[in-house]
Amino acid sequence: MSWPITTIGFDADDTLWHNENLFEDHHEKYCELLSEYHDSSTVEKVLYETEMKNLELFGYGIKGFTLSCIETAIHLTNGAIKAEEIRRIIDHCRHMLEHPVELFEGVESVLDTLSSKYRLILITKGDLRDQERKIAKSGLAQYFDHTEVVSDKNVESYARVLERSQVPIDQFLMIGNSLKSDILPVLNLGGHGVHIPYRITWAHERVHSPPTDHKSFHELESIKQLPGLIESIVPANG
Amino acid sequence: MSWPITTIGFDADDTLWHNENLFEDHHEKYCELLSEYHDSSTVEKVLYETEMKNLELFGYGIKGFTLSCIETAIHLTNGAIKAEEIRRIIDHCRHMLEHPVELFEGVESVLDTLSSKYRLILITKGDLRDQERKIAKSGLAQYFDHTEVVSDKNVESYARVLERSQVPIDQFLMIGNSLKSDILPVLNLGGHGVHIPYRITWAHERVHSPPTDHKSFHELESIKQLPGLIESIVPANG
Repeated sequence: MSWPITTIGFDADDTLWHNENLFEDHHEKYCELLSEYHDSSTVEKVLYETEMKNLELFGYGIKGFTLSCIETAIHLTNGAIKAEEIRRIIDHCRHMLEHPVELFEGVESVLDTLSSKYRLILITKGDLRDQERKIAKSGLAQYFDHTEVVSDKNVESYARVLERSQVPIDQFLMIGNSLKSDILPVLNLGGHGVHIPYRITWAHERVHSPPTDHKSFHELESIKQLPGLIESIVPANG
Repeated sequence: MSWPITTIGFDADDTLWHNENLFEDHHEKYCELLSEYHDSSTVEKVLYETEMKNLELFGYGIKGFTLSCIETAIHLTNGAIKAEEIRRIIDHCRHMLEHPVELFEGVESVLDTLSSKYRLILITKGDLRDQERKIAKSGLAQYFDHTEVVSDKNVESYARVLERSQVPIDQFLMIGNSLKSDILPVLNLGGHGVHIPYRITWAHERVHSPPTDHKSFHELESIKQLPGLIESIVPANG
């Protein structure tokens, strides 16, 4: 069977650069701020419930997350939290937005290698401006044919991106850290998926059963293994 | 001179539907909330300064605006504002996000008429999810070939949109309520612009001198006049 892959899609957050560690750091500070009212596990639980309640309206991204943090803090303290403490939550939001982009080891070399043979597309979800800022900071834009920021990653949004880019689905391979957002919708459409797990997975992105027996599903430990994997699944004359 | 216009770009907020009136309403309530501390003009001035300071980081949209409102309220009250009052600011943010889309009179009929002869593109700036939600609520998506949400509207972003849509700039006409965002960049690129002012223009979008003597610039009072204008500038066999 021939695998005429022509186009490779890359997720960005926690696939090309660190992201979830910023939220992890924020959660620690946030739990500390509320520690005189509740223990960490209660704070985490109620914050997650607020985030899920607000997700449809606020979407993904740091600004919506920050509004959920403020709302939760007011709720969990019965309005006793001080304005100065709320300012600290906003300051930390600004800190997250301004944070430098920290690439994973080997990312630039992998993109450099692959971009000479394949068309590369960056496909990220979340806040448009935040994602554009990170792409600019990353210095990686040059390797991509173009970038797509979508409000959610599902079968419909991948189908739209591929149609607009005129890529047949069986020529498409997607790389990412989230089975739910990066891999399953692409496999469902008939494309190929390479999962590279990150150390932390946000509860909302967790999937119970990885599609380990799907013929177009692959799992790697590091992005550095990607060119080798693609060579092994693409025929030499592909 | 022939004007082979093939593609018409539409701004959305305050061009197809009301938007700035939601902010106007919010400003009133916000000034009232802070009225025991400062008069309205001080509140408006400091809020605008905070918005401008945060614009690069937060971008356009209701969530960033709400964070600026909270930050300004804490600053203007020296931290005396109560958590319960901050919750009211967030509640009003949610109210704005959930608000129904109110189309301008005649919009649907104009789009119906034009979509049979021209390719229509919706080009809006701001928060991706907010804009997608409004487009869905508006019921107008069917008239557009596709929609583009950009983080800012300038010469570079229009050039990118037109290149991806493969539209030659001299075949492109853009309609909108903001000279700064909808008209000037398109005229600068060599396209055509139709300005339809809205009752309120956000200070950040104001321009001192409309390009009234530019040959490709037109101004209308209502979107209902648009098909007539386009017929008058496109040759009968165009």
